[in-house]
Amino acid sequence: MNITAVNNVGKIFGTYLTRVSSTDKPIGVSPLRGSQQMGDQEQPTFGFTVAWSFSDSTTVFVGQCFVDDKGKETLQTMWLLRKKVDSSQDNWKATLVGTNLFTRV
Amino acid sequence: MNITAVNNVGKIFGTYLTRVSSTDKPIGVSPLRGSQQMGDQEQPTFGFTVAWSFSDSTTVFVGQCFVDDKGKETLQTMWLLRKKVDSSQDNWKATLVGTNLFTRV
Amino acid sequence: MNITAVNNVGKIFGTYLTRVSSTDKPIGVSPLRGSQQMGDQEQPTFGFTVAWSFSDSTTVFVGQCFVDDKGKETLQTMWLLRKKVDSSQDNWKATLVGTNLFTRV
Amino acid sequence: MNITAVNNVGKIFGTYLTRVSSTDKPIGVSPLRGSQQMGDQEQPTFGFTVAWSFSDSTTVFVGQCFVDDKGKETLQTMWLLRKKVDSSQDNWKATLVGTNLFTRV
Repeated sequence: MNITAVNNVGKIFGTYLTRVSSTDKPIGVSPLRGSQQMGDQEQPTFGFTVAWSFSDSTTVFVGQCFVDDKGKETLQTMWLLRKKVDSSQDNWKATLVGTNLFTRV
Repeated sequence: MNITAVNNVGKIFGTYLTRVSSTDKPIGVSPLRGSQQMGDQEQPTFGFTVAWSFSDSTTVFVGQCFVDDKGKETLQTMWLLRKKVDSSQDNWKATLVGTNLFTRV
Repeated sequence: MNITAVNNVGKIFGTYLTRVSSTDKPIGVSPLRGSQQMGDQEQPTFGFTVAWSFSDSTTVFVGQCFVDDKGKETLQTMWLLRKKVDSSQDNWKATLVGTNLFTRV
Repeated sequence: MNITAVNNVGKIFGTYLTRVSSTDKPIGVSPLRGSQQMGDQEQPTFGFTVAWSFSDSTTVFVGQCFVDDKGKETLQTMWLLRKKVDSSQDNWKATLVGTNLFTRV
């Protein structure tokens, strides 16, 4: 995940390159858009959407940035991955859930 | 939820006015930012982030737009609501999950 | 879902016959085991596990029983469906999430 | 978590002693009941319910047992924690989601 910028009203821009995929297509860089809580906050919550460039699916991540005693930042996130299904009858099997931990490169 | 625009590269803009809140503060309109899968798609998946203006929390929604035989649109979504917690030790109790169904006004 | 019994320490027994499946095998009745909070409670929370008899998957449901002004009971639940995957590398795509509403027949 | 027994039809019995709680009451041992997929399976899925003895909440865990090259077992799980709420209007804020990794003591 490459966060290009968080601007002064909290908009997050960037790209996301995943290592894993449930399709057989080549994995490519996908755009990432979201928001971070602003104001006088040291460990803000944030969320972002990734519209996968190599599939019909969309993933949303939500989490919080934690900073430990030594200044090390970690992003604790949970995500929902929505697969495209043919009709609302198949809606029940469309959403995967999981967790991801990000650290600064 | 008021989707202001979905532009030609799939960016979603708008505002979100919720009826429910876990804080005692007055509920206000919150900005909404996200993405919709583009291309030759009739029932696309999408995702968006709401950074609540009246709390430290962030919610992400992910879902799919379904159109029935009569042309009626429904947005089937699932969401994760991230509350701000003091430290990563409290991370386990920070994320609520639920569903929402949206229809066009 | 056929709840056979809730005994006096809160054990739930029964069977579950689903209408939907992600396998091609015939759907059969599956055993259901769980627990309900006991004591002086009018609208208890509960949880139960279904080990699907026709697949390698397991689903857990958790929820609360609500009773409205007219005495009508509804079980509001959320569930996680765990599919079997080959290795822990595939763990990220193993868990579906959703909601179900049950009413008394 | 202390799994007392998995019997020959896959019933899981035991007790669960958590380190964390969202209540102020003393944490006690809670009963655990669930099921594991049986048959000719090396890395089965399973699920279990914990009815917390010190609160009105119920948690369900679902996961899979993985065994690595050296025979080390890990239980990869996701869970839903259901809090008791006053009415179905508050149902939206009743369910927390998270992950847990268990290893053999």
